[in-house]
Amino acid sequence: MRQTQLFTKTRKEAPADEVAKNAQLLIRAGFIHKEMAGVYTFLPLGVRVIQKIADIIRSEMNKIGGIETQSTALQSKEVWDKTRWSDDIVDNWFKTELKSGGVLGLAFTHEEPMAHMMKNFIASYKDLPAYPYDIRTVFRNEARAKSGIMRGREFFWKALYSFSQSQEEHDIFYQNITDAYIRIFNAVGIGDKTFLTFASGGTFSKYSHEFQTLSDAGEDIIYVDRSSHQAVNQEVYTDEVLADLGLDREKLEQHKSIEVGNIFSLGYKFSEPLELTYTDQDGRAQLVYMGSYGIGISRLMGTVAEVLHDERGLVWPESIAPYRVHLLSLGSDDAATVLYDMLVQRGIEVLFDDRDVRAGEKFADADLMGLPHRIVVSQKSLDAGGYEYKARTSDTPEIYTQDVLLARLTQ
Amino acid sequence: MRQTQLFTKTRKEAPADEVAKNAQLLIRAGFIHKEMAGVYTFLPLGVRVIQKIADIIRSEMNKIGGIETQSTALQSKEVWDKTRWSDDIVDNWFKTELKSGGVLGLAFTHEEPMAHMMKNFIASYKDLPAYPYDIRTVFRNEARAKSGIMRGREFFWKALYSFSQSQEEHDIFYQNITDAYIRIFNAVGIGDKTFLTFASGGTFSKYSHEFQTLSDAGEDIIYVDRSSHQAVNQEVYTDEVLADLGLDREKLEQHKSIEVGNIFSLGYKFSEPLELTYTDQDGRAQLVYMGSYGIGISRLMGTVAEVLHDERGLVWPESIAPYRVHLLSLGSDDAATVLYDMLVQRGIEVLFDDRDVRAGEKFADADLMGLPHRIVVSQKSLDAGGYEYKARTSDTPEIYTQDVLLARLTQ
Repeated sequence: MRQTQLFTKTRKEAPADEVAKNAQLLIRAGFIHKEMAGVYTFLPLGVRVIQKIADIIRSEMNKIGGIETQSTALQSKEVWDKTRWSDDIVDNWFKTELKSGGVLGLAFTHEEPMAHMMKNFIASYKDLPAYPYDIRTVFRNEARAKSGIMRGREFFWKALYSFSQSQEEHDIFYQNITDAYIRIFNAVGIGDKTFLTFASGGTFSKYSHEFQTLSDAGEDIIYVDRSSHQAVNQEVYTDEVLADLGLDREKLEQHKSIEVGNIFSLGYKFSEPLELTYTDQDGRAQLVYMGSYGIGISRLMGTVAEVLHDERGLVWPESIAPYRVHLLSLGSDDAATVLYDMLVQRGIEVLFDDRDVRAGEKFADADLMGLPHRIVVSQKSLDAGGYEYKARTSDTPEIYTQDVLLARLTQ
Repeated sequence: MRQTQLFTKTRKEAPADEVAKNAQLLIRAGFIHKEMAGVYTFLPLGVRVIQKIADIIRSEMNKIGGIETQSTALQSKEVWDKTRWSDDIVDNWFKTELKSGGVLGLAFTHEEPMAHMMKNFIASYKDLPAYPYDIRTVFRNEARAKSGIMRGREFFWKALYSFSQSQEEHDIFYQNITDAYIRIFNAVGIGDKTFLTFASGGTFSKYSHEFQTLSDAGEDIIYVDRSSHQAVNQEVYTDEVLADLGLDREKLEQHKSIEVGNIFSLGYKFSEPLELTYTDQDGRAQLVYMGSYGIGISRLMGTVAEVLHDERGLVWPESIAPYRVHLLSLGSDDAATVLYDMLVQRGIEVLFDDRDVRAGEKFADADLMGLPHRIVVSQKSLDAGGYEYKARTSDTPEIYTQDVLLARLTQ
């Protein structure tokens, strides 16, 4: 992509009302645009990050038997009436009126409609297990929205719902998706800072699990055991729990953290009121055992921005950078164009800064936007026999011949 | 994909309240699930069709300079107040209340927020043209919703917005996107039935253009000139217009049709109230010339279902079929599995009916689901030296050796 074709621009300052560091950086770098508090448009660079994160998650969900669906935003009162329709139970519903009469909800999650829909497809034990998942926008009517894209009123997420014959069948999948989540957080570059965390139990389990990433921008407090790479949420941080988990209070570190994923054993919480049953091998009707598993994709992008940046700007990992290479032409457009064409032809994703602006502006913008590899083509680099290369994480540019450069980018 | 892993099932009858043929077929074949009138969940097979259509459109938009963004569903009253906020102007807004106070809209289109956002990125003529586009869900509070996925209360679409320096610059893009639309409708298999149609003018042009596909399920009436492959909407079907366009009334055929795409020259309709200007080469402030261009992706899927089916079920074109091949094992699971693995390894998309059900049920379901190529593996086919092959559009099965089969599928 030529940067002159990218209509977005970097800016020196974020909007005055934007207090979250992730949104400040992402707005300044031209990845997102703030529509209102908690509501952000994803600009071309931001769309590419979101799509890459979504593709990593999609691939991991498919590996463990997940199968993609697309649920709806508009929600029927009838389906939710037996569970969570009331604003007294769920305090962040958005609701809206139908012209033809009646009230609809805007989905904040899909346990109820998924369980309701599966009544059409689950009859016998032969139809289980089933693991449908959505990658879509959901809505939460947050009273406050001050965390940028980490807690939006409208946000993009993946939610998988599991339908199993029994707790035993459920437990196997629960472990599989736990492992998939660990692979996902590793893949997006925050694995070392992200911990499987014990939190307060759901309806059917002593503890629930969540994935927490260490960051001062987080809203949670966790106690981390580095040796076993796990943690305990402050809400269950008692002697009894620590003994239960075999953790030594003396070895735990207190940190603020961001919840980047959760996994819930739901048991019969939704299948019972929604009457989702199957016929077992002996011909008896049984309730379906459910689970649900969420990852906020826009929140994950915000978390990476919080965790991976320096004083000059964003520092994207290769896996989710909008482009891998930022190619800067400093007055050597012909030579830069030849290199650009060659890299594109080799399938390398390049953002080519072909703008007619000062070198200092190009360097500052490249740092702010944070692509992993920066290449400068200038008379100086050409006279020195090649191109100036610098990784975003390094402070030392080097001159590479074309062969060395290609080897570096394809290693 | 093994069909036993696909949790959906075909059904003999659509829900009694479903009157649209497209939704009846798609529900029976397990592509969609009806949540309520005008609101449908896309099931795994449906998601694959939607994603393939979206990818075809994305590729064509990128070819003509489009660049993908992701606008928001939640809409600010402040941005729309100068144009179309009032329910007296737009009669199908969904609106919703913020817990923190105030009313938000649910986007039915994005001319206003796009123009408002572009004020951050358009300053001089150097910033133009720009062609952002969205592929996302939008909402329309339809009083009636009886057309299945062809007119949803919530639907998936592509919308591109063009920002140009002048009408001249705009006109060039307008022609480019017209050509792209023609390629898109050809690619999804309805090109021969789809006509560029003259309709009533917008604010800045004598006529507007829409793309209409011939179908008795359509809500429009058009007059088709086969020789020039264009048409005139009934709303502008006057002697004056026909003379203007050089069309001979005697040669036109009247048909019902479905509007599958539209292209609008907007001129200054939105840039003026939203004060979207740029500085021209002479330093003067000028209004930006806008256009907008929509294709309903879920509507297009519904249109293909309406236009391409027979008495046995759906008939997908190769380009957007959820899978290209339907492989049916009739009691020869081992041989079928070997073939399945080989086809998958060659990158061919196969749905493998490995269910333990009667042959008649497998044949009926294959016809209903409508994948382009059906392969049957049975003792009979193996004894005859291969596999039974039948195209969905043919009535004559043939026995193919493995080599012939592979040649047929990779031609």
